[in-house]
Amino acid sequence: MDIKFVKRDVLKEKPDQKNLGFGKYMTDYMFEIDWIRGEGWVNPRIVPYGPIEMDPAAVVLHYAQETFEGLKAYRTKDGTIQLFRPEMNARRMQRSNERLCMPSLDEETFVEAIKALVNVEKDWVPSEEGTSLYIRPVVFANESALGVHMANEFKFVIMCCPVGAYYPEGINPIKILVEDELVRAVKGGTGFTKCGGNYAASILGQVKAEKMGCTQVLWLDGVERKYVEEVGTMNIMFKIDGEIYTAPIDGTVLPGVTRDSMLQILKEWGYKIHEEHVAIDDIMKAGHEGRLEEVFGTGTAAVISPVGELVYKDDSVTINDFKIGELTQKLYDELTGIQWGKLEDRFGWTQTI
Amino acid sequence: MDIKFVKRDVLKEKPDQKNLGFGKYMTDYMFEIDWIRGEGWVNPRIVPYGPIEMDPAAVVLHYAQETFEGLKAYRTKDGTIQLFRPEMNARRMQRSNERLCMPSLDEETFVEAIKALVNVEKDWVPSEEGTSLYIRPVVFANESALGVHMANEFKFVIMCCPVGAYYPEGINPIKILVEDELVRAVKGGTGFTKCGGNYAASILGQVKAEKMGCTQVLWLDGVERKYVEEVGTMNIMFKIDGEIYTAPIDGTVLPGVTRDSMLQILKEWGYKIHEEHVAIDDIMKAGHEGRLEEVFGTGTAAVISPVGELVYKDDSVTINDFKIGELTQKLYDELTGIQWGKLEDRFGWTQTI
Repeated sequence: MDIKFVKRDVLKEKPDQKNLGFGKYMTDYMFEIDWIRGEGWVNPRIVPYGPIEMDPAAVVLHYAQETFEGLKAYRTKDGTIQLFRPEMNARRMQRSNERLCMPSLDEETFVEAIKALVNVEKDWVPSEEGTSLYIRPVVFANESALGVHMANEFKFVIMCCPVGAYYPEGINPIKILVEDELVRAVKGGTGFTKCGGNYAASILGQVKAEKMGCTQVLWLDGVERKYVEEVGTMNIMFKIDGEIYTAPIDGTVLPGVTRDSMLQILKEWGYKIHEEHVAIDDIMKAGHEGRLEEVFGTGTAAVISPVGELVYKDDSVTINDFKIGELTQKLYDELTGIQWGKLEDRFGWTQTI
Repeated sequence: MDIKFVKRDVLKEKPDQKNLGFGKYMTDYMFEIDWIRGEGWVNPRIVPYGPIEMDPAAVVLHYAQETFEGLKAYRTKDGTIQLFRPEMNARRMQRSNERLCMPSLDEETFVEAIKALVNVEKDWVPSEEGTSLYIRPVVFANESALGVHMANEFKFVIMCCPVGAYYPEGINPIKILVEDELVRAVKGGTGFTKCGGNYAASILGQVKAEKMGCTQVLWLDGVERKYVEEVGTMNIMFKIDGEIYTAPIDGTVLPGVTRDSMLQILKEWGYKIHEEHVAIDDIMKAGHEGRLEEVFGTGTAAVISPVGELVYKDDSVTINDFKIGELTQKLYDELTGIQWGKLEDRFGWTQTI
């Protein structure tokens, strides 16, 4: 790919690495490429980060033809920069785009574009403990047309922002509301994709959870309102009687890269893993019987979020005395160890830039 | 509301009224108003229609916080212009926005904004038989922020385009695929709203239907895959043994303004109406037994779309010999008669501008 580079006159000042937050500071540049029906992907370029012009009748603003991805670049102790399994994001975006009738970059081009942008922005990859450069690829239909249809023009953009540790004070258990009214996804829908519509639909559940003193929502299946699926924007795992339970990837749950990585590590460590539909009633029962040893969410942003309490209707269970579990901590240390290059990458997950 | 007006130097040339199509020609102006948390709705203005600047990290491009509406302005024989039940669109957008955690204009302001814009654009309201001015209000989150949250900044825009008769050669029956795999909506989701995500998720079904030689999709419920819900972007009604059946408004089906108007007319005409869940198996059975007299979709764009054939799995039924039904035609004539001011508006549905 021949990427055009448009230099900006003045670079931004880099923010304090101790107060990065999430998504507060966009870097100097972004990658852009356009798709036009009949021509394919055209005009790859790295240009100064800034506003794009959009027609008010652009398809994305009315019919939400849009998908995105999220991954990070990590600075290792020796100063090199590495990506974590970017090919997984490329493939997931392809699956998202198929469902949404949108064009995809091939895997190689997707990864090449990310590497090219991170290479330009390498001074933006922070070095403080727990920090990283968050990378956000997004593709949306920018054709101007009010009829509902498979759009004929798309724009793919990659933007970056340095981010701090998701939980600056270290990973602490959170309290979660099991949502029994609102639904995130159903088979035959878009639950397995990272399309905008899934996230728009989820905000009300999040607001409701916060009103009830909870940090996140645990979604149940949309058909029987019985089986656990995801928590907020993360996958979720349960350790019961020493074994791991998590929802299978069969249409409604996002196939998380962190989820997949955790499962591989857990398998290596000899854990028995059940990728199956688990009823919330069984989880609560295990909790009351003292067999629900650990619960944690997994995702790129937070890596791992221990769950200290589950609230379901009039019932609630506390997990591991609201303290981070031993396995949860061990998984966090293992995965972040590989990501920041402190531990040997025996799975071949990292790619140096 | 004190609406600022920014005049454009040169007005566009008006298109040929005989070849308007749908959404091909945007008018000269658009209405815009912004919402900022803590301030509310600010800066109402009518400005030249044209591109808006958007940050690549705008919430709408990633998380699809967006809803829209659709209605029309009609030119009557004496040259006056009238709207059809715009307060219904105002109220529906409020319900959409509540589900999506978005701010709404109050009903009065919503209608006032539409009237102000149509008044400026009155020369754009076409007079040819079957033509009208399509009006598209849309609201979306334009805050720049990558965290999933209830956004703090929104933009509400109204745009217009003159449109031709939806079916230029007159209303003709269409062939419809009953979709048994993909799902449009489920209880607890966003099916009753006009949010972008619903439409993005529906495109694949439409593509699949077209591949099978059908014009539209008939969606079944997401839980049992058994009950009829909507067709494409319209509501659907069945006349069986002289009585009318249509899905109830209970969470998954869009509360159509045309649907509501048709039901009021049908009630006045003495038809027995069943707003209830009807199984596709019963519809197909009625078809094979010759009791399925008429089937039609209802919506603002096409007003009424007669269905000539239903294809479901390996089965299919033809309705009324693939000819438009007597009641379907009568309903079309009645409703369009009121909309274009040819018939007395005994329901008080129209508002003159």
